Amino acid sequence: MAWRRGKLTAILLIFEVVFIVLFGILVVYDDEANATAKQNSLTPDQPGGADADNNVLRAYYPMFQDVHVMMFIGFGFLMTFLKKYGFGSVGFNFLVAAFVLQWATLMSGFLHLHHGKIVVSITTLLTSDFAAATVLISMGAVLGKVSHIQLIIMAFVEIIFFSINEWVGLTFFKAVDVGGSMFVHTFGAYFGLALARVLYREDMHGHSKEGSVYHSDIFAMIGTVFLWLFWPSFNAALAPGDDQHRAVINTYFSLAACAVVTFAISSAVEKDGKVNMVHVQNATLAGGVAVGTSADMMVHPWGALLIGSLAAVLSVVGYSYITPFMADRLKIHDTCGVNNLHGMPGVLAGIIGAIVAAVASPAQYGNSVYQIFPARAPIANSSELATIQAAFPAIEAGSGRSAGLQAGFQMAALIVTLLIALVTGALTGLLLRLPIWDHPEKDSLYEDEDYWEIPEEETADMNGSLEGVGHKKPDSRARTESDTNNEQDTKV
Amino acid sequence: MAWRRGKLTAILLIFEVVFIVLFGILVVYDDEANATAKQNSLTPDQPGGADADNNVLRAYYPMFQDVHVMMFIGFGFLMTFLKKYGFGSVGFNFLVAAFVLQWATLMSGFLHLHHGKIVVSITTLLTSDFAAATVLISMGAVLGKVSHIQLIIMAFVEIIFFSINEWVGLTFFKAVDVGGSMFVHTFGAYFGLALARVLYREDMHGHSKEGSVYHSDIFAMIGTVFLWLFWPSFNAALAPGDDQHRAVINTYFSLAACAVVTFAISSAVEKDGKVNMVHVQNATLAGGVAVGTSADMMVHPWGALLIGSLAAVLSVVGYSYITPFMADRLKIHDTCGVNNLHGMPGVLAGIIGAIVAAVASPAQYGNSVYQIFPARAPIANSSELATIQAAFPAIEAGSGRSAGLQAGFQMAALIVTLLIALVTGALTGLLLRLPIWDHPEKDSLYEDEDYWEIPEEETADMNGSLEGVGHKKPDSRARTESDTNNEQDTKV
Amino acid sequence: MAWRRGKLTAILLIFEVVFIVLFGILVVYDDEANATAKQNSLTPDQPGGADADNNVLRAYYPMFQDVHVMMFIGFGFLMTFLKKYGFGSVGFNFLVAAFVLQWATLMSGFLHLHHGKIVVSITTLLTSDFAAATVLISMGAVLGKVSHIQLIIMAFVEIIFFSINEWVGLTFFKAVDVGGSMFVHTFGAYFGLALARVLYREDMHGHSKEGSVYHSDIFAMIGTVFLWLFWPSFNAALAPGDDQHRAVINTYFSLAACAVVTFAISSAVEKDGKVNMVHVQNATLAGGVAVGTSADMMVHPWGALLIGSLAAVLSVVGYSYITPFMADRLKIHDTCGVNNLHGMPGVLAGIIGAIVAAVASPAQYGNSVYQIFPARAPIANSSELATIQAAFPAIEAGSGRSAGLQAGFQMAALIVTLLIALVTGALTGLLLRLPIWDHPEKDSLYEDEDYWEIPEEETADMNGSLEGVGHKKPDSRARTESDTNNEQDTKV
Repeated sequence: MAWRRGKLTAILLIFEVVFIVLFGILVVYDDEANATAKQNSLTPDQPGGADADNNVLRAYYPMFQDVHVMMFIGFGFLMTFLKKYGFGSVGFNFLVAAFVLQWATLMSGFLHLHHGKIVVSITTLLTSDFAAATVLISMGAVLGKVSHIQLIIMAFVEIIFFSINEWVGLTFFKAVDVGGSMFVHTFGAYFGLALARVLYREDMHGHSKEGSVYHSDIFAMIGTVFLWLFWPSFNAALAPGDDQHRAVINTYFSLAACAVVTFAISSAVEKDGKVNMVHVQNATLAGGVAVGTSADMMVHPWGALLIGSLAAVLSVVGYSYITPFMADRLKIHDTCGVNNLHGMPGVLAGIIGAIVAAVASPAQYGNSVYQIFPARAPIANSSELATIQAAFPAIEAGSGRSAGLQAGFQMAALIVTLLIALVTGALTGLLLRLPIWDHPEKDSLYEDEDYWEIPEEETADMNGSLEGVGHKKPDSRARTESDTNNEQDTKV
Repeated sequence: MAWRRGKLTAILLIFEVVFIVLFGILVVYDDEANATAKQNSLTPDQPGGADADNNVLRAYYPMFQDVHVMMFIGFGFLMTFLKKYGFGSVGFNFLVAAFVLQWATLMSGFLHLHHGKIVVSITTLLTSDFAAATVLISMGAVLGKVSHIQLIIMAFVEIIFFSINEWVGLTFFKAVDVGGSMFVHTFGAYFGLALARVLYREDMHGHSKEGSVYHSDIFAMIGTVFLWLFWPSFNAALAPGDDQHRAVINTYFSLAACAVVTFAISSAVEKDGKVNMVHVQNATLAGGVAVGTSADMMVHPWGALLIGSLAAVLSVVGYSYITPFMADRLKIHDTCGVNNLHGMPGVLAGIIGAIVAAVASPAQYGNSVYQIFPARAPIANSSELATIQAAFPAIEAGSGRSAGLQAGFQMAALIVTLLIALVTGALTGLLLRLPIWDHPEKDSLYEDEDYWEIPEEETADMNGSLEGVGHKKPDSRARTESDTNNEQDTKV
Repeated sequence: MAWRRGKLTAILLIFEVVFIVLFGILVVYDDEANATAKQNSLTPDQPGGADADNNVLRAYYPMFQDVHVMMFIGFGFLMTFLKKYGFGSVGFNFLVAAFVLQWATLMSGFLHLHHGKIVVSITTLLTSDFAAATVLISMGAVLGKVSHIQLIIMAFVEIIFFSINEWVGLTFFKAVDVGGSMFVHTFGAYFGLALARVLYREDMHGHSKEGSVYHSDIFAMIGTVFLWLFWPSFNAALAPGDDQHRAVINTYFSLAACAVVTFAISSAVEKDGKVNMVHVQNATLAGGVAVGTSADMMVHPWGALLIGSLAAVLSVVGYSYITPFMADRLKIHDTCGVNNLHGMPGVLAGIIGAIVAAVASPAQYGNSVYQIFPARAPIANSSELATIQAAFPAIEAGSGRSAGLQAGFQMAALIVTLLIALVTGALTGLLLRLPIWDHPEKDSLYEDEDYWEIPEEETADMNGSLEGVGHKKPDSRARTESDTNNEQDTKV
């Protein structure tokens, strides 16, 4: 397959050159990051100056870095459970996410141009990371079953539809989804599942290399635990003030309950009452998804515990019964079980969000109800708006929606997200079936060998110790020139 | 042991339902996280509003997340050194900590009710994480020797006594312990050791599965290094202003010296001058414990180095000589050596705290001495208090204690902590010896097999490469329905 | 080699005692961390008080902790790729870095005394971490080829010359280098390479233990990904306001492009178009180095993408062609390939910094040009300075340099850094060749056995499962007294 060399290289370099050109034409620094902006020429004593300690970077940076860790360590290591696909899991996760950070900055920027320019600041970096999450979730559904080239094409296409769907949901439906459970998790999961359905082949299911080994399951726990720890940042990063504080508390408690109930239900569905590592690695996180849409709402700490508990039950049941059913009967093979971690909990999150929106009243939220659900604020120039703004000047004019109407739009956004994800995922699957993308054969499934230089193998020597047997060349950083020359000979 | 399935499930679900009910009755958001609170209806320009950038969340969140990482990655991976107990180490650590986050919120809340309610904010999340540390330390003493059910019962009981002891120490003795070296580390260690003594069986000691293997020791280093890095946050998170800054500096230098001296002493006590990974994984952290009580005091950077150096000597000597002595002679078997990492360094921390308190004078601290040791502030309505408040308005009325008296109360808090930990730990051990908790037999010690679905095993095939031998079913996320049905057949 | 025990112990304890004494004589808390400082006796409502939420700790702490993680997790795990040197990689990294944190605080302090004292605050902790990076980079060049004692001596000597070179560059040349690409990366790499040249022996090259195994490459990815994620903090931590914000954005985009292009070029230079894990582990990070000097300048997002892309090409080509050439022809054996990750990208960073400085004008930067390049500010008491200060009071008097002159001094700093690094690295190599430092023999290269107590080995038993064969004693935390006594017998 020497021809593949040219192909991956060409595709990546073409994209990168296009990114550089489009960035050159369109992308500029936000004033808070622009040396030329006059506001930056103030002293630290003047709080209006971005040079002062109150640059907006400070407000977002810690949570941004938590989210950043979730994308690259969290998703990357969570997927290393496969015994022979560790390089691909953490490596292609890295490649795909780094690709999306750039492309999502552009794609989201196209939909939010300021005077014809894409303006980047710390919040851009954060939303590009959220976009990466969407693609990494879809990647989980097809992990080990597609080539790196197919992943890049998938990422490119998916970000287009993800951005459009989110824009429709936020701008047209004025739905709220602070933790992205609808626009990120639900979209990413069902896009990936539709794509997996179209790419389904019998040999993908029940494959001998699909399982884990003992230490690969421990590597995967690095991903799980970092995702679990930093999920409050994911759900709260873009919320203001007390909403942010509440989103942290709700997500923390939802996840704590989810972890406990996952162990309870895992032990109930497994024989002998043992606990299944698959559930611990994945279902413990469903509470973060399920509370995502309502994280900044007044669900109260007990509500957060309840949401997390329900998510755990749903997710473990999904892994034990629904995933096998989907693979056997519906020909939807879901390598990481994203339906159970992101899909069904994402739908649950959307429904909970609608229910909580339906009962949200000024009596319970004060004027904050107009901040959390901006479309509920009275329309511009109304006397109602003037009254509210007198008490809470930051409220902007909205659509004067009732609680019920807001709930309806929440459900509409969820349903449209599901539809767009399924349709565009299936279409992307058809695109990926084109033979030019190097779709892997059976022997290459769930296996790094075809994509990576693999170091000499481990074996047991006479003394029972593990070491390389040396039938491959050492994978040295300082290999000899003859090594390099040998490689040159084999190049086409 | 099919009966165990029902038991773990029932215990966890009962606790979770009780938590949800108690949260529903008692737990409310702090005003800083409550949409209804009037203060949140202000614009970002008004610094009094919690919607503004100065919500208290911002002040605590970065250090909170560091502590959160310590609990779940730090303790979880530190314990993965056991060659066959990796799932239990990181998995049960996860379960126990998630359980404690909820239970400690309630238990601590019972002791600090506001108008009959438990008020939660970011500082609640932080103190619940500290409570989790206490239980995880105790868990280290009995790692691999108790069932998951025993761990949950232990956590439930321990948090009750931990909360009471801390309340006595802080409220009654007015002792200070910014890094929790007495109330968290000393308590957790001696509670666990007393419990380990009561649960001692001959077969626990010198067991063939108690050791590590090469790569499990590297997994453990993930835990060690994250604990070491974020310990300044642990010791400083709850301190204000310059006290917090000083606690960071003192902990950083104490740990740096501790790491260097650990290597020095490890090489001195091991044959051939080799370094022992057990010491590097554990004794390097003793400096964080030993400086915990005095971290916000004026110990000066040289004092921090000295404290860290002493802690390293104490801890390495503990691992090399005291732990074997305790196991052989006192029948106290300490799987992780918590006596050396948390116990003795915690006592050292308490003594150092008392010494530094005994020499703390207004000449050295200015009026800050009344902030760091609140009981030393003059009594209410005294003229001394008025003078101090004129210069430092945040000082509140205290008990007018002398330096020596404060030192005495510091020692009293340490001794009471030791006594309560030993007595309640022993009693909890008796409780755990009840046969209903599934105490593991010899063959189940230090071994995941009895508690976890283990993936197919690794072996060397004909070509010398490691892969699954397939005599167990693949641990696939997408196993076939027949797998599931087979399991159903074996259920009771 | 029982004699080694005394040696490592003696060297480390002597250094630690000297550190404690020098800290006692010289090191004091900064006012922001000093209880005695009058400013700390204010209420939280008075923003001037360090007890208020605006203690300088808050501004630096999140990025400091990111950098801290880079040093100990990032560098430590990145080097665990070697199949039999995992303990040494993460363990000696830990020892060396902890040693340097203390020594660099002193050494840098000697060059910046305030009234005869070394004043420490959070920025001291941060710059000591940067100094540690320099030594850890040099360590990468000689990884597995020197004893722990040699590493400590190297660290001691290198910090002296690192501090002097940085002082010359910043104070004398007034060069700017916000991310330390010249003073940290270039210095550390070429110091290490010169040292490696002097220590070169034929048996170091093409050694059977120099390679990785499958799971050691995954451990290394923990290091890679954390370095990649937190590099924006490394480059931005010391910059103010919008400069910091810009440095984050530039580093983020440079690294994203670098990761994508690394995959492209790796697949191009490897046979069959496979991707090489060595490149993914290392070359993906070159973009962080290459943008380091210019990170706070107006390179624009497209410029950042371009810089990262160039760095990836340079680094992958380095690993594939230059490293083998250097080892075979120049007898410079570079274990981790630091020339490709830190050396050449560091030189590239310096050149880019000079070019961007040469075109920096007030038209493009506003008055910020005098903040980013302080030497370009007009001289003291000039009317130009007064005009600028009227608009931007924080600007201080400079040297009135032109853009071209600043560029010239940037290049001068780069060249001097290269010269000092090469000369002092070579001299340090001569020092390390003294026989007293236990230079490892061929059989001890890239191998933990000589330095560490290694746990019993893994092997395949009859049932094909991996477990210890028990021909060594269990590495228990609670070993029996007879174990300890046996050891005592073997001590000299």
